[in-house]
Amino acid sequence: MDYSELYGIAKEARKNAYAPFSGFRVGAALLTEEGRVYTGVNVENSSYGATICAERTAFVKAISEGERRFSAIAVSAGEEEALPCGICRQFMFEFAPDLTVITAGTGPDGEEMLRIRPLGELLPEGFRLAPEESTGDEGRKEGDKE
Amino acid sequence: MDYSELYGIAKEARKNAYAPFSGFRVGAALLTEEGRVYTGVNVENSSYGATICAERTAFVKAISEGERRFSAIAVSAGEEEALPCGICRQFMFEFAPDLTVITAGTGPDGEEMLRIRPLGELLPEGFRLAPEESTGDEGRKEGDKE
Amino acid sequence: MDYSELYGIAKEARKNAYAPFSGFRVGAALLTEEGRVYTGVNVENSSYGATICAERTAFVKAISEGERRFSAIAVSAGEEEALPCGICRQFMFEFAPDLTVITAGTGPDGEEMLRIRPLGELLPEGFRLAPEESTGDEGRKEGDKE
Amino acid sequence: MDYSELYGIAKEARKNAYAPFSGFRVGAALLTEEGRVYTGVNVENSSYGATICAERTAFVKAISEGERRFSAIAVSAGEEEALPCGICRQFMFEFAPDLTVITAGTGPDGEEMLRIRPLGELLPEGFRLAPEESTGDEGRKEGDKE
Repeated sequence: MDYSELYGIAKEARKNAYAPFSGFRVGAALLTEEGRVYTGVNVENSSYGATICAERTAFVKAISEGERRFSAIAVSAGEEEALPCGICRQFMFEFAPDLTVITAGTGPDGEEMLRIRPLGELLPEGFRLAPEESTGDEGRKEGDKE
Repeated sequence: MDYSELYGIAKEARKNAYAPFSGFRVGAALLTEEGRVYTGVNVENSSYGATICAERTAFVKAISEGERRFSAIAVSAGEEEALPCGICRQFMFEFAPDLTVITAGTGPDGEEMLRIRPLGELLPEGFRLAPEESTGDEGRKEGDKE
Repeated sequence: MDYSELYGIAKEARKNAYAPFSGFRVGAALLTEEGRVYTGVNVENSSYGATICAERTAFVKAISEGERRFSAIAVSAGEEEALPCGICRQFMFEFAPDLTVITAGTGPDGEEMLRIRPLGELLPEGFRLAPEESTGDEGRKEGDKE
Repeated sequence: MDYSELYGIAKEARKNAYAPFSGFRVGAALLTEEGRVYTGVNVENSSYGATICAERTAFVKAISEGERRFSAIAVSAGEEEALPCGICRQFMFEFAPDLTVITAGTGPDGEEMLRIRPLGELLPEGFRLAPEESTGDEGRKEGDKE
């Protein structure tokens, strides 16, 4: 799938956003290494702190279906370019430090212009707990907490 | 779908949880009013604050697919009963203050015993911003922020 | 200190709130068992999910000064009564499941009327990880992660 | 105040961290433009998502006291260097895109070596809502929501 098509899916996904507080509707489309696509939208909350962005929605959807390897994510807020916030950069870095991030701005003649950045450029020296703790689901035995 | 079946789906969903830090794997199964089911798992993060629980994963999955009306959610952490945390109660209350919450504990003979509670019992006097602000996606024009 | 005085401190604290997105300014005043008071305000963020409410601000202030035992918290959003959101209920429950929560509504003659509730009434069956894990700072050796 | 002294304050603040789940204790010391210092610690929660890091604790403390202009923050996790997570980068960017971030690693002879970075290097192209919305507390009238 080419990035332009992935961006189009992100833009289309926006229709399902729940953004009654900001009016800022965002859609995302996450591409796995195997070529599957998961969409996401932002979901706001009366307690702003419980809000989940489109990028994280797309990630948890994919992860809950068993996906763990990701190639690229496209993010669309409509006409204006919107870059992932720091929370989403942190969240995506956990699974895909080499992810390609696709957004779009508007060119001089009003045309849509894709921008491609590696996640590492948006979150240099990203935060991780020690690899032995965080590289897999098997790091600790399940059931050892209530 | 009966609640026992829904709980079974939640329990099965746990296999996809990403819980390398706590080892506490949780699955959820969210039932819409129309009878569709969306699963969720907890997805932890090196920065604990970015962690998303199974209940919220199930909700954002459904919302991103256009769902807005929910009937019940089942939550399973395996053998031990696990109730939704306050963040999830807040998040679910936004969409479904009358949601039915299904968990399971272990009976005297080791058998699984379902417990059914209304969300309002777990989050009395839940927090909402004023209805005119939060009842729909149409509360503000889109695109009025960057 | 009586609850009316504590509420007054919460209301006064609102002046320092940072709420450019919602316009919903909240103040809190947290009373320790030893009688010290820590104020808090809500601090919003462009990424709504990074927003921290007044109650949590008051708690982290106190905890960072070494406090661990709390008696009551007053919360004021001005004229309208504002109850703690689910995130704050969860956060406060960690340290003070028996906390007294003080808010105020407006009586029939426009006078301020205090309302007193135990936290347990706002977050029944609150979520905790197993006591052996969470009862103290000494549950794990420090330095065992990066 | 020189950065080495600020780092020392951050390191000392760690003693008040509440980190029973990760064992990863962090302290922060935030310097305002006027030269005042606010400390912070990480405060974990049974629901990992409610965890607040040391950097955000220091910021909300300062903001709740009326501070709005910040110069530098030091962050210490003890022996190991710890960089702010993406959530904290996002949170700090709201108030201080030009903040200086001070951490410390260990040199070849075991000595503490300060590292100084501008926040913009850790969160390039940070996310903000439109300036007219977010530059001040006065962006909206207070009280226009419940």
